[in-house]
Parts: sequence; C-alpha cells; structure tokens
Amino acid sequence: MTKKLMFEKPLGMRDTLPFFHNKKEHVRKNMAQVIESHGYQFMDTPLVEYHETVGKMSATHDTHLFKLLDQQGHTLVLRPDMTAPIARVAASQLKKEGFPLRLAYDGSVFRAQQSEAGKPAQFEQVGTELIGDHSSYGDAEVIALLIDSLKQTGLEEFVITVGHIGYVRSLFEELLPGDQDAVAALLSYLHRKNYVGYEKYVRSLGVSQEAKDNLNALLRLRGGEGVFEEARALSKGQAGLKAMNDLKQLYRTLQEYDVASFVQFDLNLISHMDYYTGILFEGYAPNVGALLCNGGRYDTLLPSFELNASATGFAVHVERLVEALDGASDTKKGPLCLLVDDATFKAGLQEAARLRQQGDQVVIQHIDQVADVEKFSLKFKTVREMYKEGGDR
Amino acid sequence: MTKKLMFEKPLGMRDTLPFFHNKKEHVRKNMAQVIESHGYQFMDTPLVEYHETVGKMSATHDTHLFKLLDQQGHTLVLRPDMTAPIARVAASQLKKEGFPLRLAYDGSVFRAQQSEAGKPAQFEQVGTELIGDHSSYGDAEVIALLIDSLKQTGLEEFVITVGHIGYVRSLFEELLPGDQDAVAALLSYLHRKNYVGYEKYVRSLGVSQEAKDNLNALLRLRGGEGVFEEARALSKGQAGLKAMNDLKQLYRTLQEYDVASFVQFDLNLISHMDYYTGILFEGYAPNVGALLCNGGRYDTLLPSFELNASATGFAVHVERLVEALDGASDTKKGPLCLLVDDATFKAGLQEAARLRQQGDQVVIQHIDQVADVEKFSLKFKTVREMYKEGGDR
Repeated sequence: MTKKLMFEKPLGMRDTLPFFHNKKEHVRKNMAQVIESHGYQFMDTPLVEYHETVGKMSATHDTHLFKLLDQQGHTLVLRPDMTAPIARVAASQLKKEGFPLRLAYDGSVFRAQQSEAGKPAQFEQVGTELIGDHSSYGDAEVIALLIDSLKQTGLEEFVITVGHIGYVRSLFEELLPGDQDAVAALLSYLHRKNYVGYEKYVRSLGVSQEAKDNLNALLRLRGGEGVFEEARALSKGQAGLKAMNDLKQLYRTLQEYDVASFVQFDLNLISHMDYYTGILFEGYAPNVGALLCNGGRYDTLLPSFELNASATGFAVHVERLVEALDGASDTKKGPLCLLVDDATFKAGLQEAARLRQQGDQVVIQHIDQVADVEKFSLKFKTVREMYKEGGDR
Repeated sequence: MTKKLMFEKPLGMRDTLPFFHNKKEHVRKNMAQVIESHGYQFMDTPLVEYHETVGKMSATHDTHLFKLLDQQGHTLVLRPDMTAPIARVAASQLKKEGFPLRLAYDGSVFRAQQSEAGKPAQFEQVGTELIGDHSSYGDAEVIALLIDSLKQTGLEEFVITVGHIGYVRSLFEELLPGDQDAVAALLSYLHRKNYVGYEKYVRSLGVSQEAKDNLNALLRLRGGEGVFEEARALSKGQAGLKAMNDLKQLYRTLQEYDVASFVQFDLNLISHMDYYTGILFEGYAPNVGALLCNGGRYDTLLPSFELNASATGFAVHVERLVEALDGASDTKKGPLCLLVDDATFKAGLQEAARLRQQGDQVVIQHIDQVADVEKFSLKFKTVREMYKEGGDR
C-alpha cells in the first residue's frame, strides 16, 4: 500500500475529530431533549436499503443517491434521508399503533458526490415525523418543535421561511391553464432559486402582460403576515384560497406557541420538485450560507407504502447547525490529568474516583508512558504531577 | 413495485423500533458517561472506507467484509470495526498530539451475511482505544473501564475472561519447535473454541507423550489467579514468563481498581487469529449466548499506518448488552397526552409547558385528528381529555 492511499477516504467522506464530535454531541443532546419532551419517540433504520424500495421513494434525486452493488448484484443505496425508511416502518411494523404517530431520528444520511467540490457524502440529520395528523395544528406543532429545538442548542438568530406548494400550483393553474411544460419550468426555476431565470422565462411566455405581471408578482410575496392579503389578491382559485387559509391558521397557532417571531413567509418557496404537498419550510442562520433545516407536509409518501395517512416533519442538518453555533462558547471543561508512578498509582485512583464523583473527567496516566510531558499536558485543563508528591506503595 | 419488495430490507439489516431504541440509548448514555469521566474523547469516522486502506487493515476476515462497488469501480467497505479507522486517524490528523491518546467511539459496524441465518449485517459498538501506552497499567485501565461501563448500564452478572497470546505462542514454540503448520492448526482450534478438535489434533502429532500432555494441559489453564502457578510450571520460555508477569501485574492492578472479582483467566483464549499481540479478553453475560464484548492489546496495527505506537482497547456489542439487560426494568416513564380541541388548545400548550418544565414528556393532540381514541391512548402513561373540560378560546 502506498503512503498516499493509506490515509485516503472515499470522495466526500470525513472524519469527526473529538473537538467537532463534542459540538455535535451538544447539538444532539439538546435537540433530543426537546423532541422527547414533546412525546416524540426516537427510532432508527438500517444504513443500507434496496434501491427498489426506499431508494426510489426518497425525496433525493436519483443522481444523488449513493448507489452500490452487493455481492448478489442487487442495487443498494446508503439511505439518502430518514423520511422514506420511517414511512416504510410506519406502514408495516407500526401500522397497528394508534395514529397520529410521533417519531424522531438522529442518523447519518448519504449523497453521492461526483467531484472533489468539498461537499459531504455523509452527514447527520436530526428530525421528526408526525404521521396521521393532517391539520394545521400538526404543521404548527412541527414548526414550533423545530424552533424550540434550535433555540435549545443555543442558536439565537435564525429564520424559518414558510411557503405552500398548493398556492403556487393554484396560481400557475390560473395563469397558465393546461401548460404543464411552462409550469414545470417555472417550478424548476423557483426550486433552484434562480429568480432571474424565472423572470426571463416569464417574458418568453405567450400570455397576456397581466398574467406575466402576476407571475412576477409571486416573487415579491415574501415577509410577515402582510403577504396574506397580497397573495389572496393575486390568486382567486379555490386551491389557492385553501392554501392561504392553511397559512393563516398556521400563523395564528404559531403565535399561540409564541414562536411566530422566528417565522417569515415566502410564497415562492419550492423545497423539492415533487415531494411536499402542502405547507413547506426552510431554515437559515446568518453565518451559514447553506440550508440549516427544512421540512413540510408530504401526503403521498405513506400512500405509496399502502398506508392512507398524511405526514409532516422536519430535518436539521447537524453539521451545519454546529457551524451556525460556532460563535457560541464551548461548554466542555476538558479533562484533568493525574500523572502517577508505581508509588502514587493507588492514591491517583482514589483521587480520580473522588473527582469523577463530582462530575470531573479525569485521566490517570503513568509517567513512564509519557515521552513528552509538556506536549502531553497541553490537552488537559489541569495536570497534577502526583508522582512528584511521593507515595507509600 | 410488488408488495413483497416494498417492505424488504437487505440481508441482515434491521429496523430499531422506539422500544428497543430507548434501551440502546440507556446503554449508550451510561457507557459514554463513564468513558468520558475517564478522560476518553469520543470521535467518529465515515461509515464507508476504501477496501485498500481500512478494509485490509481490519481484524475482520475478508469474507465477512461488507464490500461494495462505487460508481467509479473502487471497492469500498462498510466499516467492519472502529479500531482500524481510528488507527488511521491517530496516525494522521492526531499524530501531533501528545501520546498516550485516549479515544472512544459509538458507531455502527457491518458484517456481510451470505444467508438468512438471522445474523445482523449492521450492529453498534461502543468502545475505547488507549494508544501509545504499552504498560500493564494501560491494559488494566482498559479492562477496569470496560467493567465500570458495563456496571453503569445496570449489568450485574458478567465475566471478563483474560488471556495472553504471548503465553500460548511461547508454549507452542517450546513444545512444537519450528512446526508452523501445527501451531497454526492448534491456534485455529482454540480460536474456534473447538477443544475436542484440538485434543484430537494433538493426538495425531508426532511428538512425545509429555509434550502432548502439556499441550492438553493448556486447555485446563482457566480460573482465578491460581492458574498463574500452573502456567508458569508448564512453560519455561522467556516469552511465556514475560506473559505471566504481564498477567500477574495486570491482576494486581485490577485488584487496586477493585474490579478483580469480575475477571477470570483463560490462557487458551484466542480472540482473533492475527490481531492481538499481548493481553486479550472477552466478556460474557449469563443470559446471552454470544460474545458481549472483547478487546486486547494490538501492537502491529499502528505501525502498519506508520505510527510507532502500541495500543489497547475494548468494544462492547450494544445490541447484545441490551439483550443481557433485558431483565432490568424499563426506566422510561412514557409520555403523557393532552387531548385538546380548538377551545382548549391554548390551555393545553400552557399545561404542556408546565409539565415539560418538570421533566415530563407531553404530547398535545387535537381530538379531530384521532380516529380511535382508545387505541391512540394505549401508548401513553396518562391521557387527559382536556377537550371535555371546555375552554375559553
């Protein structure tokens, strides 16, 4: 084995060193504490699934699936998200439970990377799924829980942007009746947040100037509850009105949860091309460019596993949340070290037991095994050289 | 997609439902608390590695590696253990730290399964690595930490069986000088714990009856510290004497740790064919047939990553430990549920906040979304029908 190969990892795979691991653990523990306090139950699914089952059901585009061949020639995927596997479990082992079901997860998910662009092939998501509740109370519960979980990690500044796919589709149906291609193209521009491309495409359409103006007006439907009136003025269709009622009811409930100040509306938000079926949301923090968390209502996934139930949930990207928290101080105190020799070993054991009892992390290290005491000492909060104090062994 | 395929998982892959997840979480948290209190730092490595690097270095036999082809045609492995990846990291990103290094992990590892025999293809290990300490204090620290960690989970009855590969090799060298084939055959019998096969093979050897008696006497070197004298009488070689001194020193130190009552010796213990280089150990609990945990000293792995350091560690099989604890009572209290309607929703939020403050897990559920109240109520410790109490919304 050449030295170069010896330390190499597959494209996009990363090690998590202790410093970063501590920070992730802080995020995990705090989010899990809030999520469990809301009666959500954590579960897990295998890291490997058949492409035929969970792979095809996932919200992840096929080209981003981490596909592999097993020794029998089956196509496997490293799970691209937790929503599809949890739907599989809810529709099989858990289908006899009384619904609504409240489930949560904390697990690694995968994305195939084709280039050395620095994107991770494996990352961690903490999330929840509320299955079998189709009310806007359900939507509000999930968003409020997301906000409380983020706050519990110490994150202070963030925005959850909420949209509704029903509104966008209704507006497009009114303004571009029957033109599936144009609708698909416009959804794709919105999905990629390419607003310049969207406006250019609108200009190319063979529809009235008023219709074009209205299509472009969609891009301005962003902000607080003020957008509700503008949105209602723009779209008169039944589905659009229903979507606006959903959003207004959601907003009232989020006010009751006392989390509305973290929420903004963006009626041109399209998180996925073909996944969410109602309210959907994305979360961002000021010092992280990429999406911190997202979620929404997906009412067709469970039926595709033959369970007639709607669902809503969120997923938080743990590594990005750690990045967003980077300013926050590290609360870990760091371990103490007792340096001992044969004569002071027993006394070291007793002292360590006493210190651990009061919550300290204590290393006992025999001095004979330390080649460079100065360098070794660097990683400890305090080093006590007990071997210099002598002992009675 | 046929219904049969829809819910299928790859061979040996399992879901972890909430009830079992809670039990695993109990084990994880308790073990991590003890391990961190001893100054070990948790870290993680990718779930996927190149076969050329970590795959070949692992203690797992090639036929049990979960091998896969990526889209570029590289052979990847799902990590078979955490020891080889952590060695890779210790020998690269962490090599500038002051040694000894104390690292820990809690992660999924994989084994390829060829048949429906019910063996898991993915399981979880919690473990530690003490890198750069070659003393028997280091061996004792790892075994004492293992015992304390197991005790902290609530496990009361278990035995850690300790052996020493140096003793076995020295004895074989004395009794079968130069006969590599016979030594390999005998080690293989011991590795598979096939003692009948071992004795039969000994009978077939062309050596003196005394040598045969002594080879068979090895099988009886099991028990408490009494075996030290018998072992010393059997082997006179330098390496054998050194191994016995290691074991005696280890035993004295384990007595100082006050954990010697959990330890037995078994001088014919061979955990792996070519991995451990000194003291090695295995742990068993009465109601679990399979190995609960194991570990030992491995002094050749880090040099193969070009780091001149010896190491010792343990790994605990989390699912089997949960099984071993199955008698222990479930400490989770189970969530409460507040069933509300529009009028009582706000009051429900306030009551839930109050209860969560005092540590309860509380679900708020709108009654309109519950098709079968009786069935839904089954999973809660208490259900309060607030919607019947009325409200002022």
